[in-house]
Amino acid sequence: MQNIPFFLHGGDYNPDQWRHVPGTVDKDFELFPMAGINSLSLGIFSWSVLEPEEGRFEFGWLDDIMDRAEKRGMKIVLATPSGAKPNWLAAQCPEVRRMTGDGVHEPTREQQCRRHNHCPTSPIYRRKVLQIDEALAARYGSHPALALWHISNELNGECHCPLCLAAFRDWLRAKYGSLKALNEAWWTGFWSHTYTDWSQIGAIDFSIDGLVLDWKRFVTEQTASFIRSEAEVLRRHSPEIPVTTNLMGFYEGLDYARLAREIDIVSWDNYPQYHERPGETERLAAFTSLTHDYMRSLKRGKPFLMMESSPGPVNWWHHNRLLRPGQHRMKSLQAIAHGSDSVQYFQIRKGRGGSEKFHGAVIDHEGTGGTRMFREVAQVGRDLQALQPVLGSTVRPKVAIVFDRESDWALKASFGPLDSIKNSYADTVATHYIPFWKRGIPVDIVDGDSTLDGYSMVVAPCLFLLRDGFAERIERFVADGGTFVATWLTGIVNSTGLCFTGGFPGPLRKLLGVWAEEIDYLYDDERNSVVPVPGNSLGLSGNFGTSVVCDVVHAEGAETIATYGRDFYAGSPALTVNRFGKGEAWYLATRGDAALLDALHGTLARRLSIPRAIDSDLPDGVSAGMREGAGGERYTFVVNYASEPRAVDLGPAARHDLLDGATKSGTVELAPFGVMVLN
Amino acid sequence: MQNIPFFLHGGDYNPDQWRHVPGTVDKDFELFPMAGINSLSLGIFSWSVLEPEEGRFEFGWLDDIMDRAEKRGMKIVLATPSGAKPNWLAAQCPEVRRMTGDGVHEPTREQQCRRHNHCPTSPIYRRKVLQIDEALAARYGSHPALALWHISNELNGECHCPLCLAAFRDWLRAKYGSLKALNEAWWTGFWSHTYTDWSQIGAIDFSIDGLVLDWKRFVTEQTASFIRSEAEVLRRHSPEIPVTTNLMGFYEGLDYARLAREIDIVSWDNYPQYHERPGETERLAAFTSLTHDYMRSLKRGKPFLMMESSPGPVNWWHHNRLLRPGQHRMKSLQAIAHGSDSVQYFQIRKGRGGSEKFHGAVIDHEGTGGTRMFREVAQVGRDLQALQPVLGSTVRPKVAIVFDRESDWALKASFGPLDSIKNSYADTVATHYIPFWKRGIPVDIVDGDSTLDGYSMVVAPCLFLLRDGFAERIERFVADGGTFVATWLTGIVNSTGLCFTGGFPGPLRKLLGVWAEEIDYLYDDERNSVVPVPGNSLGLSGNFGTSVVCDVVHAEGAETIATYGRDFYAGSPALTVNRFGKGEAWYLATRGDAALLDALHGTLARRLSIPRAIDSDLPDGVSAGMREGAGGERYTFVVNYASEPRAVDLGPAARHDLLDGATKSGTVELAPFGVMVLN
Amino acid sequence: MQNIPFFLHGGDYNPDQWRHVPGTVDKDFELFPMAGINSLSLGIFSWSVLEPEEGRFEFGWLDDIMDRAEKRGMKIVLATPSGAKPNWLAAQCPEVRRMTGDGVHEPTREQQCRRHNHCPTSPIYRRKVLQIDEALAARYGSHPALALWHISNELNGECHCPLCLAAFRDWLRAKYGSLKALNEAWWTGFWSHTYTDWSQIGAIDFSIDGLVLDWKRFVTEQTASFIRSEAEVLRRHSPEIPVTTNLMGFYEGLDYARLAREIDIVSWDNYPQYHERPGETERLAAFTSLTHDYMRSLKRGKPFLMMESSPGPVNWWHHNRLLRPGQHRMKSLQAIAHGSDSVQYFQIRKGRGGSEKFHGAVIDHEGTGGTRMFREVAQVGRDLQALQPVLGSTVRPKVAIVFDRESDWALKASFGPLDSIKNSYADTVATHYIPFWKRGIPVDIVDGDSTLDGYSMVVAPCLFLLRDGFAERIERFVADGGTFVATWLTGIVNSTGLCFTGGFPGPLRKLLGVWAEEIDYLYDDERNSVVPVPGNSLGLSGNFGTSVVCDVVHAEGAETIATYGRDFYAGSPALTVNRFGKGEAWYLATRGDAALLDALHGTLARRLSIPRAIDSDLPDGVSAGMREGAGGERYTFVVNYASEPRAVDLGPAARHDLLDGATKSGTVELAPFGVMVLN
Repeated sequence: MQNIPFFLHGGDYNPDQWRHVPGTVDKDFELFPMAGINSLSLGIFSWSVLEPEEGRFEFGWLDDIMDRAEKRGMKIVLATPSGAKPNWLAAQCPEVRRMTGDGVHEPTREQQCRRHNHCPTSPIYRRKVLQIDEALAARYGSHPALALWHISNELNGECHCPLCLAAFRDWLRAKYGSLKALNEAWWTGFWSHTYTDWSQIGAIDFSIDGLVLDWKRFVTEQTASFIRSEAEVLRRHSPEIPVTTNLMGFYEGLDYARLAREIDIVSWDNYPQYHERPGETERLAAFTSLTHDYMRSLKRGKPFLMMESSPGPVNWWHHNRLLRPGQHRMKSLQAIAHGSDSVQYFQIRKGRGGSEKFHGAVIDHEGTGGTRMFREVAQVGRDLQALQPVLGSTVRPKVAIVFDRESDWALKASFGPLDSIKNSYADTVATHYIPFWKRGIPVDIVDGDSTLDGYSMVVAPCLFLLRDGFAERIERFVADGGTFVATWLTGIVNSTGLCFTGGFPGPLRKLLGVWAEEIDYLYDDERNSVVPVPGNSLGLSGNFGTSVVCDVVHAEGAETIATYGRDFYAGSPALTVNRFGKGEAWYLATRGDAALLDALHGTLARRLSIPRAIDSDLPDGVSAGMREGAGGERYTFVVNYASEPRAVDLGPAARHDLLDGATKSGTVELAPFGVMVLN
Repeated sequence: MQNIPFFLHGGDYNPDQWRHVPGTVDKDFELFPMAGINSLSLGIFSWSVLEPEEGRFEFGWLDDIMDRAEKRGMKIVLATPSGAKPNWLAAQCPEVRRMTGDGVHEPTREQQCRRHNHCPTSPIYRRKVLQIDEALAARYGSHPALALWHISNELNGECHCPLCLAAFRDWLRAKYGSLKALNEAWWTGFWSHTYTDWSQIGAIDFSIDGLVLDWKRFVTEQTASFIRSEAEVLRRHSPEIPVTTNLMGFYEGLDYARLAREIDIVSWDNYPQYHERPGETERLAAFTSLTHDYMRSLKRGKPFLMMESSPGPVNWWHHNRLLRPGQHRMKSLQAIAHGSDSVQYFQIRKGRGGSEKFHGAVIDHEGTGGTRMFREVAQVGRDLQALQPVLGSTVRPKVAIVFDRESDWALKASFGPLDSIKNSYADTVATHYIPFWKRGIPVDIVDGDSTLDGYSMVVAPCLFLLRDGFAERIERFVADGGTFVATWLTGIVNSTGLCFTGGFPGPLRKLLGVWAEEIDYLYDDERNSVVPVPGNSLGLSGNFGTSVVCDVVHAEGAETIATYGRDFYAGSPALTVNRFGKGEAWYLATRGDAALLDALHGTLARRLSIPRAIDSDLPDGVSAGMREGAGGERYTFVVNYASEPRAVDLGPAARHDLLDGATKSGTVELAPFGVMVLN
Repeated sequence: MQNIPFFLHGGDYNPDQWRHVPGTVDKDFELFPMAGINSLSLGIFSWSVLEPEEGRFEFGWLDDIMDRAEKRGMKIVLATPSGAKPNWLAAQCPEVRRMTGDGVHEPTREQQCRRHNHCPTSPIYRRKVLQIDEALAARYGSHPALALWHISNELNGECHCPLCLAAFRDWLRAKYGSLKALNEAWWTGFWSHTYTDWSQIGAIDFSIDGLVLDWKRFVTEQTASFIRSEAEVLRRHSPEIPVTTNLMGFYEGLDYARLAREIDIVSWDNYPQYHERPGETERLAAFTSLTHDYMRSLKRGKPFLMMESSPGPVNWWHHNRLLRPGQHRMKSLQAIAHGSDSVQYFQIRKGRGGSEKFHGAVIDHEGTGGTRMFREVAQVGRDLQALQPVLGSTVRPKVAIVFDRESDWALKASFGPLDSIKNSYADTVATHYIPFWKRGIPVDIVDGDSTLDGYSMVVAPCLFLLRDGFAERIERFVADGGTFVATWLTGIVNSTGLCFTGGFPGPLRKLLGVWAEEIDYLYDDERNSVVPVPGNSLGLSGNFGTSVVCDVVHAEGAETIATYGRDFYAGSPALTVNRFGKGEAWYLATRGDAALLDALHGTLARRLSIPRAIDSDLPDGVSAGMREGAGGERYTFVVNYASEPRAVDLGPAARHDLLDGATKSGTVELAPFGVMVLN
């Protein structure tokens, strides 16, 4: 991307909060080169400064920052200010304020407070936003320092105001055509909920799971429409400048796959809770890697940006523990390893007041740049310069794991079957991700609508909802030689949340060759065991544990690889494989412990010859990532997430470490939180 | 009952939800005989189908089901649809929607959502309900398949709307006559709460416990009036058809003893959380038996119906664990053992959507009847046929345990003394029930208004509120030779919640011969001990534990049977007996452990020669019930609630097991979850 | 004080609640002398009796009690009834009812319920209150029995009604003069919160911590203004009668230091949760002593009153355990030891109904005075007579510990850094109080505005907010020879909640000679160690633990006394001292375990020769207090809080125990909960 000529190293910068403190901006621009800061994100919450009263704009301070940046060769990420509306607007036009609804009582209008609580439907709000966007785009759209448009901020939440509910009804009418179709899709015969007039859809009744599922979709569509309305203005003025909005990883309120279609570059805000508790490091490091992969996969094959991260502890974790020396660098380069083209921060200079005054920043209250964290930021600045050849390269996995937001919504909207499962879908996906992550095998995260071209293996843990056409697509994938792994609680409901009839896993019953008659949910401290069938075709041996959920399954053509060890369904299938065309369809009927998932995915990956970043077994707490350039050049990132040194076997070939410039081979020791980038 | 010529085996059936799926009803009627289904409960949530728009009724689909049932000799339980109002009514007449109140802020109107959220006072709602009831009764009141009217569904909750509050004021005026009387009864001098105009009673102020107690009574009366208004219409059209409404066991919002006066047959919905955790089986099985007995006792000496139960796990437990093989049969026959004349289900066919789509059903989503649970249901169908001679017989205990809903309300409305006690009244009652249950001794559950004729022993655990006249009635009972057992926290308040003056246990001080000066509440992990007095008249020996609550008691004429072992009240009475007329009045000053309650009630029952279903000691997890026919014939149910086999000593006489047709005597092994029915 | 000629022994008495029970008052006045009751608090919740309808007053019953009291030489504490408004007023004038706000939605009006929920701003409410106050003051202001005016009751809470918000805006305008100043003080540039019109300040937005801090101040000012308006009326009629309002110890909603300026005598309601759990007694006894000292220090050097306490368990603790024999006396004399001139109760006679019907009282429901607690109250009555010489004496400490309510508010209003710290400021202060309490060293509790004259040592734990001028004042204190101890999380924000720039501890950096660069927050089960530097000037040795918080500190001229033992900041300073002028400024960078705080404060107190009540080491669970008369006479209170006897070494000199009249010296055994008062 020509707009982004180097790894962006910078972040949210709010000089507008410091206008009454003379000398602040001068001081900051002295400190930037010392910390290797090469970009600034501006204007994210500046509406009240940019337009202090309706129609009167003040751009002088922003002109100044843009021009200083240009002079120093820095790049600007310029935001639209729609994430926080000014007081004058909220006071003048109540409709711009969101309404909160609980599904039972009349929604109530929010007062002007906090941020992000505007109505996404309000015509007045949209008009005022587009006015200021127009002014910004007209003034700065051609500014040489401008690298990227940043729309609003961490879009989230939902509004239950009459305008939104009317728009929801219009959306439903367009989707279903008739109330008859809607009533059938939502199964409103239950509890006498049949709608006989569109106007009756006046509350988000949480007892109608089909309604809730459609409401979530509508909220995403309305948010997408809001983004699109802003993007149109910006693109009109500067067609060559890409547009993004900063996402929030596994935030569950929006379907990011849908939103990603409205933007040019994916960016997201990464706030992992790194610490050094034994036993948690690996889970957290893997989950953070998974989230990077999820974000990157929204624009498959393209780099993304880490738009925010914290140089130090944030203020909103339960324990805001200091980052240990080196952890900041580890966390920053982990993002690069998974495809980020930036390390950006919230924020550059720590504010003196407001609700984030204790949030980590490059320049602390102390103000001189003489802090440990400032020095660690500067180190990352130097690292990113050393990694310049990696810029623009991306990650091209052979394995896809399905995480489907609509499935998540459908499961959460259901009453039953088990709260702990409903609230841990992403964690469940992570348990299947870890065996690949430990092996340095890159993974894409896709959903039920994604194309599966190019993958050798697709894993779909707990895919509760099957989108229309998914069964056919995955059958074709397997028939053509792909390996598919499905699990318990898969193929339960269709796209409007109706349970499949004819036996679970519904439309996948034929492909998987099993019928899941019943689903047992175990108490938290209960365990069952999984016992391999002697001579099974996977070569699985040993004895594995399982917990949480056990489907009681009948094999209908599938080979039983392992069975349950106890309870009344002892001896019935716990893991099966069905040959289908040129491929295989696996069914894991129970959650399985880490050893079972590791054995299953490790063996399958090996049999499918899926490439790994490092060929040797990686020690605990170490993972490896791989980026590929357009010319096929490979960059291997090896990261030690552990607080102790770890020895990594690089193999006999000599490789170049871009970070320290050394040539490495054989067994190499990585310092605590240490990183190598080999090519 | 001629209307119920066999044990009803059926349940909620909702073909109206499947009208868009051709062939469903035909398939269902094929499956019914395979499962021994002989009755259907119809129309419970069908208002929107029966009256799709105001005044237009559609009965065709219901005619069809009624007629199919008649042809096959099946019986119909026909519901009035008032449990879930249609959208058109809610949209048109806001007053039919309930208002939620928290006692502090203005009540807020609920939107149309969920179910059961109508206002019970609204004249419009009552008029619309009676209109459709009239139409149903006119059409089906003489239908040969009709066995029972089912009014509304699981009536519950309360409404704080102006109409309800006005009705509450009218009710109070009728009850108290004057504000002076009301102010004294509620002790409104406290915190300056004196009412000087009826209109000032405008909120349910939770700081006035007398008000809260009367509000609970009013809610029950309003619900009773709602039932009565529906029942009148039905009885006018079909005077010979009995009327019921399905209750919910120990649901605390309504006084079921009061509601039972409005209906002809008691029915209830039984959803025990059976599982096989060691140590919990007995408590849960006993609690379920207790609940059956409570429900049956509402119409003392008559059978009841188990209107709902689940053939499989439900979807709203914390863990929706599968029923182990045999548990469904065990649970079903337990109901029969305690006096039920039915095993009915929610529901016959599992819906595809809605909030109960994962709730157990006879016909699963799979749809063919080929499931394990379908086979277990069919087994129960065969069992019920074998038990036909038992139909109509009932249970006639010599022991009554007092569970008084008004006392529960008064305790909960009080500030203090101890949350754990306030929230566990039913559990406390269960601890006194278990010694009888383990011995196969039938028990009635009565309240402070019940007649005590015919009982040898009355146990009143934690009877916080004494109703007017109760003290006199129980004195007479004891004077005439009865045995009465009272406990800690008994005789504290009168019928308007005012503490008795003159020393606790208030009006029972003379009968019990003790003064409870102080009440000590122990920490959760604290224990005291109970030490028998040497040579005590009960023959109590050993050393017992106690916890939670310790009255500090002075014996005033009563014999001290046991004393406290520690703390500053060591040596003071923990268990006393007072001779009074021809009987005995016992006072247990502290909670006591299971061993103490077992020794106390076991010894008393033996001394009073109270009959047992089985004369031998039953093993852990096994209990026995007894039903008696009009001609005195006895049916003994022996149920093994344990997941392991148990040996039961039936004694030397040969007895006939109605279930397997075998003749049995001596020690017999019961399979896990096994049942015998001997006569 | 001539108005209080003896230790007041009495409490809330509500004969108005018993007017329908003839003979009650006669019986009570028989019992009063038996219990040594010499004073009554009247009229606290009597508005509805005193003014049953608007403008019609009924004083007859109150005349009667006042006159009976006078005849018997008893003293009356007469309340204004504004703590609970009558129903007629609430019904007639909605504006008198408080509005609840959550900062997000429109505030909602409360219904008439509970108590204390009036609007403090409402002109109508103020007018009605002053009317009845005028009537009371005119009638009783010169009554010979009148000892004290008691304004309202336990003033608390806040109101979000439009009248209050308008008054808040006026208050802000007066404070800041301009919106520019306000915007800077609140850092409203953050999240675009800049106010451009005063009317925009329409909600208590919890995301603006500066706003929240000012709102808390305003609520205190409005409450002070309410008290002042009532006091003015009373003082006009009886200028010689002192005025109080009963405070609630560490209640966090109001700044009691501010309120104390409006009243003549401090009084408070003391409800410690005494019990005998091993290990908790000391903490609880110390915390109760701390609270007495806090209350007393509001009027430094003057006695206070314990306006309420409970003769028996209350009804609102989680466990309302009985007071063990002697605990009531111990708790009562503890108050005297710390400077109270009364032992008063809520309440004299236990009501039969209402939400405090189970709250301890002198006369129980039983009604005869024949209870254990009545006898224990009578014992306290005799004790207070024996202590008559102590009346009017007070406590004159050389040590001040800073507890600053504004600092507490600022910390709580902040987002971050650690919830457990935000919610335990008083507990943190207590950990620093205990070393003095264990040594019998009297302590004053001051805040950042208090004068420091007369103290040798000032300890400021966790002084998050520094008031304007505090740094200068404390520098002067140290320069003049004082010893100052500061800790972690001190000097973080200024008086409007803005973080200090230039390095923490902000304006104290120079005095303390340290820079706290970073603050680490430990997990609940994490520990670090504190290792004394060999040869340190404090003579500190051994190895100490620490937890919760660890500042990473740079010594800038200060001597390092001890360092951290582990983690990446091992070896850096954990405890420092800086010589400054003639004094010393200590910085404790981490929470420290009890042993460290004991060693630090114990050594400093010894080096400063701070006087102790008893010179010997006191055993666990025993503390000693000291009161001094105007003529310098000293009364030493020794209290055993433990449930076992304890031996105390009084030293060789013979001393007189006022309680038992004996002469004591050498080692003396104190019974469980035993007390000596030596002079």
